[in-house]
Amino acid sequence: MEPRTPMESRTIITDFVLPSETNPIGNMFGGELLARMDRAAGIAARRHSRRIVVTASVNHVAFNKMIPLGSVVTVEAKVSRAFKSSMEIYMDVWIEDRESGMRSKANEAIYTFVAVDEMGSPVPVPPVKPESELEQERYDAALRRRQLSLVLAKKMNPKDATELKALFT
Amino acid sequence: MEPRTPMESRTIITDFVLPSETNPIGNMFGGELLARMDRAAGIAARRHSRRIVVTASVNHVAFNKMIPLGSVVTVEAKVSRAFKSSMEIYMDVWIEDRESGMRSKANEAIYTFVAVDEMGSPVPVPPVKPESELEQERYDAALRRRQLSLVLAKKMNPKDATELKALFT
Amino acid sequence: MEPRTPMESRTIITDFVLPSETNPIGNMFGGELLARMDRAAGIAARRHSRRIVVTASVNHVAFNKMIPLGSVVTVEAKVSRAFKSSMEIYMDVWIEDRESGMRSKANEAIYTFVAVDEMGSPVPVPPVKPESELEQERYDAALRRRQLSLVLAKKMNPKDATELKALFT
Amino acid sequence: MEPRTPMESRTIITDFVLPSETNPIGNMFGGELLARMDRAAGIAARRHSRRIVVTASVNHVAFNKMIPLGSVVTVEAKVSRAFKSSMEIYMDVWIEDRESGMRSKANEAIYTFVAVDEMGSPVPVPPVKPESELEQERYDAALRRRQLSLVLAKKMNPKDATELKALFT
Amino acid sequence: MEPRTPMESRTIITDFVLPSETNPIGNMFGGELLARMDRAAGIAARRHSRRIVVTASVNHVAFNKMIPLGSVVTVEAKVSRAFKSSMEIYMDVWIEDRESGMRSKANEAIYTFVAVDEMGSPVPVPPVKPESELEQERYDAALRRRQLSLVLAKKMNPKDATELKALFT
Amino acid sequence: MEPRTPMESRTIITDFVLPSETNPIGNMFGGELLARMDRAAGIAARRHSRRIVVTASVNHVAFNKMIPLGSVVTVEAKVSRAFKSSMEIYMDVWIEDRESGMRSKANEAIYTFVAVDEMGSPVPVPPVKPESELEQERYDAALRRRQLSLVLAKKMNPKDATELKALFT
Repeated sequence: MEPRTPMESRTIITDFVLPSETNPIGNMFGGELLARMDRAAGIAARRHSRRIVVTASVNHVAFNKMIPLGSVVTVEAKVSRAFKSSMEIYMDVWIEDRESGMRSKANEAIYTFVAVDEMGSPVPVPPVKPESELEQERYDAALRRRQLSLVLAKKMNPKDATELKALFT
Repeated sequence: MEPRTPMESRTIITDFVLPSETNPIGNMFGGELLARMDRAAGIAARRHSRRIVVTASVNHVAFNKMIPLGSVVTVEAKVSRAFKSSMEIYMDVWIEDRESGMRSKANEAIYTFVAVDEMGSPVPVPPVKPESELEQERYDAALRRRQLSLVLAKKMNPKDATELKALFT
Repeated sequence: MEPRTPMESRTIITDFVLPSETNPIGNMFGGELLARMDRAAGIAARRHSRRIVVTASVNHVAFNKMIPLGSVVTVEAKVSRAFKSSMEIYMDVWIEDRESGMRSKANEAIYTFVAVDEMGSPVPVPPVKPESELEQERYDAALRRRQLSLVLAKKMNPKDATELKALFT
Repeated sequence: MEPRTPMESRTIITDFVLPSETNPIGNMFGGELLARMDRAAGIAARRHSRRIVVTASVNHVAFNKMIPLGSVVTVEAKVSRAFKSSMEIYMDVWIEDRESGMRSKANEAIYTFVAVDEMGSPVPVPPVKPESELEQERYDAALRRRQLSLVLAKKMNPKDATELKALFT
Repeated sequence: MEPRTPMESRTIITDFVLPSETNPIGNMFGGELLARMDRAAGIAARRHSRRIVVTASVNHVAFNKMIPLGSVVTVEAKVSRAFKSSMEIYMDVWIEDRESGMRSKANEAIYTFVAVDEMGSPVPVPPVKPESELEQERYDAALRRRQLSLVLAKKMNPKDATELKALFT
Repeated sequence: MEPRTPMESRTIITDFVLPSETNPIGNMFGGELLARMDRAAGIAARRHSRRIVVTASVNHVAFNKMIPLGSVVTVEAKVSRAFKSSMEIYMDVWIEDRESGMRSKANEAIYTFVAVDEMGSPVPVPPVKPESELEQERYDAALRRRQLSLVLAKKMNPKDATELKALFT
């Protein structure tokens, strides 16, 4: 299969934060953002694979910045690397100040999706061909994240996670 | 502050999977489950701390099992360990077969919440006192997960993550 | 069919009250609570009967206590008695004070569900075997409530509602 | 206060039944209909009293007729009688067949609302002046229903419920 | 086909404006009102044609009046004229003041729907027979609006839009 | 005020069509698309003006293409021209075929928003400076559309609508 670039799967969801999506101190529920990111990642994975796709896992996500009621939130998702049937989707989340127009980074998140056929069985997907420097960086780090994922799922012996092991020794 | 047991913060959300929550092959969207788990975890953290709480992070979550339309899904959340202002919430997700009545495990997930005051500043929370064997196990492992979290957030040098390092060497 | 205990059908839905669920003075809409109770009762009836179930009726429900925005509401449903194809589900609704951790009873409600096959025709369900004293009490009173129901639906002559009649004479 | 007629508070909500509002055999959830009726009744009570209103109770509701996906459902609510601060709202629910255009009655339901001030304290409401024969009938029966309500809430001794007692003796 | 009157297709949706439907200064989102009007118009078109109907176009809609949070909004829709398979639906939108009970006009809007068979192909619909003076006026003006519609869609030469042309010359 | 380009206000909402958003033949409700477009247009207007914005009007919108359940829909909005306090927002709506990856145009739509202060009074907005040929074309045509709008609202004498009149004579 012909490789595709991250730009070809790029997906943007921009939307308001509404009152029914905020907690008692007026900030967006983490769960609401997780659901929006799942939709953006799913569309990016579908664009890359042209297949039905299902969420396989969510990497560690940190909520560093509160997102107040009335904010405009932009989720930008691109497939960063593919492994047989699975795709890593890297997302950047931005909020913007209405008066100054300045955007600031609120989050990054990484989801993994798997392409399946109508019966739910995995099918192969095209490889990813990174273009920009940032895309290359994310492409390289994806292997390390995959090892961590396999170790955490007990599908890989930590001793064999060479990329990951290098971090600690 | 007096320690509280995981049972004191135990929170259960049981609900149907509706058509608007399913993907084209009729299974629950991952993002929808992430949002339900965020609500269950948030209530457990609130029960433990008796404070306003906000999502701080989501650990690696794997979606091992598809959850079909019409399923009854149960999310059970308990605070597994507390660190100053933050609480780790461990969740088990079950689905049940209507005809046999059998429950099967669909997922586990771990979220971290922080207790805050009305201004959003962190406030201390009571420690956790595990009772059952499983609660003790999750309590112990929470330290390792916290180190991983700090390493991933670049707030801890991997060389200092003694618990975690032991896994790989 | 083997009888089942109320504990076997016990269903818990705990959730926040969100802004879109409150009236102009900031309390939960009665209709919203009625809908949550219908979901909890439906899952309890499904667990008891292992069948598709449909709402047959709602007994008199009184809203004695306002439930303010931001509350955590717990609905606990158990099948209290079964009659051929129909099941009475008894629900207790609790709200809890965030700071003290105290729970207080907000409501009780009783719904009736009927078990049906794929065509919508009624099918028999197992009997209920109460265990606790409270379960026994609710089991006994269910007969009186059923008579009231039949009288109100004009399917029973008030003179034959012996249990009910005793109340007034 | 000047009395108002039931027509002055008449409120109509007509809407589709959507997929997210139906159970596994494709019929509208009872809870969904209860919530729609609560909104119609609340608007009727507000129109009668010109006050903030809150749900006080729901009378016995029977779901005699299944309402399939795609139906057009009409809820028509009118205040049938007022007692100091409370109002009984009588509702008729209709569904219509698309091809023949025939309407058929799906349900009747009776809710009670209370008028309150900004602090939530009950305030008096105008009396109801029935016009049609059906409105007069419902007005008369409202007293009997109120007695039943008070008896069930243990706020009236069954022996004093003269209207109700007459039914059984 | 027998003609039908606008009263036969009359459809009313009355409902509250909830917090999740309002913008930062507490007024109903225009898009939310457009969606409610689409549902009212769709039901009116279905009642007139007794067919499946789909939105074909929305005429120019002006939002002259802000609709604050907590308002009760009434949309009243009637089919004003039919052309082969298409129907023009004219809507009046009212809001009411809780304390005085006064209604005021918030909007008018005109949608066009097309009747289709199960495959989505257009099917003929009955003509409209206006009764009141206002219905006659709207019936007459519908032809001019249809010409404008066809001109804007480039399906009619402006020189042939005789009704419309008369306005400008 | 410094002019801003259409690219500076460009806003993209990409999302799935879910079951609760479709009619009986499985296509997206027109009203649902109108609501999504209102959100996209509102964010574009806010980005251009850096003010609170409210929907003022919707131009004629034609739904030429059915959008089936499960589609991925992209709404792209850009401010095309500004007049004192009001902004015209031009939107292109695309759907894409999952298997071929081809995008096709489903709709165009034009909304007008007004910038307001906290009290709801109109405030001036920066002019628009078109860059591409298409942006210039839409900028030029906006004047004609504004005249039509004013004529339809009876705020301009048709004889004075010079741009518009030229079309018909």
